[in-house]
Amino acid sequence: MGRWEPNTPGRLAEAALELYSERGYEQTTVAEIAKRAGLTERTFFRHYADKREVLFSGSGDLEKLIVRAVADAPEGAAPIDAVALGLDAVSEFFADRRDFARRRQAVITANAELQERELIKLASLSAALADTLRRRGVTEPAASLAAEAGVAVFKVGFERWIDAAENAEGRDMAQLVREALTEFRAVAAGR
Amino acid sequence: MGRWEPNTPGRLAEAALELYSERGYEQTTVAEIAKRAGLTERTFFRHYADKREVLFSGSGDLEKLIVRAVADAPEGAAPIDAVALGLDAVSEFFADRRDFARRRQAVITANAELQERELIKLASLSAALADTLRRRGVTEPAASLAAEAGVAVFKVGFERWIDAAENAEGRDMAQLVREALTEFRAVAAGR
Repeated sequence: MGRWEPNTPGRLAEAALELYSERGYEQTTVAEIAKRAGLTERTFFRHYADKREVLFSGSGDLEKLIVRAVADAPEGAAPIDAVALGLDAVSEFFADRRDFARRRQAVITANAELQERELIKLASLSAALADTLRRRGVTEPAASLAAEAGVAVFKVGFERWIDAAENAEGRDMAQLVREALTEFRAVAAGR
Repeated sequence: MGRWEPNTPGRLAEAALELYSERGYEQTTVAEIAKRAGLTERTFFRHYADKREVLFSGSGDLEKLIVRAVADAPEGAAPIDAVALGLDAVSEFFADRRDFARRRQAVITANAELQERELIKLASLSAALADTLRRRGVTEPAASLAAEAGVAVFKVGFERWIDAAENAEGRDMAQLVREALTEFRAVAAGR
């Protein structure tokens, strides 16, 4: 196993998702994932702590990306506009991962423990966003509210994007998230 | 134990919260809670499924209350205004429970498992709100976005209300939640 292997984590993630979709998350073992990927268990554990980690390893990258985009927003940008730039960065992150994201979501929806994990990741994302806004000088409660707004818009835009029926026209995530933000602002304005 | 006992669930909840605060949630047993309340374990289990349930038994009532208030909002009320009426009902529910709510929150914040449970309850509340709005004829994604907005405003208003330093003036929850809603609308408007 000393050779260089192209995209080993990606191959393991793809194998895991195939098995979770076919036979269920609970019923899949790390040994089976490694076998499906044509790799060893030892290689699996070099990349992921456990089989749950395969589904959530991207969350850290996602959080870093959105936080950086919000931190880098033009000085004086309104909190909601800084958050919108963060959401654009998220959409770019997901752009070519729709199939993976859609299948991942189906696995998570089928398992209560994974849903809990997903909620924790979103709460952590909201806290990181609020923290970034405070470092930009946004006071409370505006920082927390803008962060919660960002996560709500992300959730709704993301769901529309991965929903095959809804997204029959193949619209991209950036467009759907921006639409969700526009709709959100209309709702808040009482329309 | 056949006698009628005034406010048995309340006595058990108070005893549980005292013990969770004193020695930690993990370190407290149902036997100890019953003893502190001057009741038996059997009585405890007539009111609560387990020691976690003591902290979350109010969530169902809360959800019913907010859902009913939103459902009963005047016909033609904007989604955010219907949600605001739900939030008023929530504030009324909590009005004379600040001390309990504050101590409960401290116990939850200290325990990851309880935090997860709290996040699940809030996600369930958001789903119930969105469902109620859809039954009022609100379309998606406006229904989900207004529901998420309501939960975000509740969280922020509630935190400010139970924060002793913040709430030094003894302001009531209804006032703080309404302020959070006003602030939320300002944030969404880009101010």
